[in-house]
Amino acid sequence: MNEYAYEVDVDVRLRDIDFMGHVNNAVYATYMEQARERYFRDVLDVSLVDVDTVLASLEIDYVRPIEADQTVTVALEARDLGESSLPLEYEIRADGNRAATGRTVQVVVDTETGGSKPLPSEWRSRIES
Amino acid sequence: MNEYAYEVDVDVRLRDIDFMGHVNNAVYATYMEQARERYFRDVLDVSLVDVDTVLASLEIDYVRPIEADQTVTVALEARDLGESSLPLEYEIRADGNRAATGRTVQVVVDTETGGSKPLPSEWRSRIES
Amino acid sequence: MNEYAYEVDVDVRLRDIDFMGHVNNAVYATYMEQARERYFRDVLDVSLVDVDTVLASLEIDYVRPIEADQTVTVALEARDLGESSLPLEYEIRADGNRAATGRTVQVVVDTETGGSKPLPSEWRSRIES
Amino acid sequence: MNEYAYEVDVDVRLRDIDFMGHVNNAVYATYMEQARERYFRDVLDVSLVDVDTVLASLEIDYVRPIEADQTVTVALEARDLGESSLPLEYEIRADGNRAATGRTVQVVVDTETGGSKPLPSEWRSRIES
Repeated sequence: MNEYAYEVDVDVRLRDIDFMGHVNNAVYATYMEQARERYFRDVLDVSLVDVDTVLASLEIDYVRPIEADQTVTVALEARDLGESSLPLEYEIRADGNRAATGRTVQVVVDTETGGSKPLPSEWRSRIES
Repeated sequence: MNEYAYEVDVDVRLRDIDFMGHVNNAVYATYMEQARERYFRDVLDVSLVDVDTVLASLEIDYVRPIEADQTVTVALEARDLGESSLPLEYEIRADGNRAATGRTVQVVVDTETGGSKPLPSEWRSRIES
Repeated sequence: MNEYAYEVDVDVRLRDIDFMGHVNNAVYATYMEQARERYFRDVLDVSLVDVDTVLASLEIDYVRPIEADQTVTVALEARDLGESSLPLEYEIRADGNRAATGRTVQVVVDTETGGSKPLPSEWRSRIES
Repeated sequence: MNEYAYEVDVDVRLRDIDFMGHVNNAVYATYMEQARERYFRDVLDVSLVDVDTVLASLEIDYVRPIEADQTVTVALEARDLGESSLPLEYEIRADGNRAATGRTVQVVVDTETGGSKPLPSEWRSRIES
């Protein structure tokens, strides 16, 4: 499980837990967003709040439930960058074991035209290094 | 239980339910916010998103748990308006029975000075009628 | 847009809205869960809380942002039922326009063995009728 | 601000942020719950999930907004223990400054009778030491 370039710990909140005693399925998307926000800050050196990107798609494959008292880590890596799209692959781990895998695609948008625009070259070089 | 001037139904979501099978305590504040937003729209004829108010305080007394399959109604009423503060009293009902009571105080703010400013007279007359 | 067998309205909460003024990406998964819960109740005549299913996967394609004051409807339909898996296709609409499409796969589990078990025939006949 | 016996850091999530760019008012209750859960674990040496308590009341006074990029700490302390009630006082800090104060009262319940029962003496001695 050393194949991901970046990892971040995420705190499980009681508020995340469903009636089964497991982390609710939608909360996985929040854990991924949390990891993405840190990735933008630490790897791309920008704030996800400040950059003009939109989320185009989200996929999650659930492998095993996450319990309230487990330690959650989200590993992620950018793969197969497009002209204007930034695909990210995620692995959500609970106590070190794979609990889910996920994928998001973000697109950089031109706020004036509303269309897409190329990924900043700065991001490309930071992701590749 | 006819003492409140305004009532709104709130959908209970599975995401609101905790490991005990009850609506999580923090979600009551969200139900109150939801009711407040509707109250502003229907009674004050403004959007809570557009008006410059800040929430100063929140109180909730929990009476009985709310289950996933119950029908929730929030009743509310403005009481004891201040110079620049709008106190609201809430009753959260599950299947018609009191599940909680609550209270919020909002303050109208002057975005230029950052201080408070008087409640619009339009609001006073709408609340009183 | 009449191709879905079932539709349900979902209330947008202020709590769902992000710093951009749009419904947060993870909340779409909650809207889908909300629609799924109603579908189980209305079409399959069971409570999602009572049945032994696990969510195996979730996919969302975001088409356009949802604003706080829009009316949201989730349309859904079961398609391509498997031996023990129940795939659902969703369309999330804001003011009648497609805001996202989604897909989930649920698997019926045998709580004793932990493995999967066949979809109840009762469900198959209800879905097909 | 050294008057509280216990402190815990809480991660601010993008999902916590409202359309104003601030932490949503209901999320403060979640931060308090998160701190409470840690307090039970670290100070009382029990899991909040396992003990039979109900939340009787919640109060929050909002002092200043919390921004997405701030570091949040929740300080708390048990004060004025009752026969069967555990009152907790909270201070929520953003970048070291008081952002809110809060108070909860939990009651220990007897799951057989549904009534209250005395605080475990073990808890009293742990709180006092």
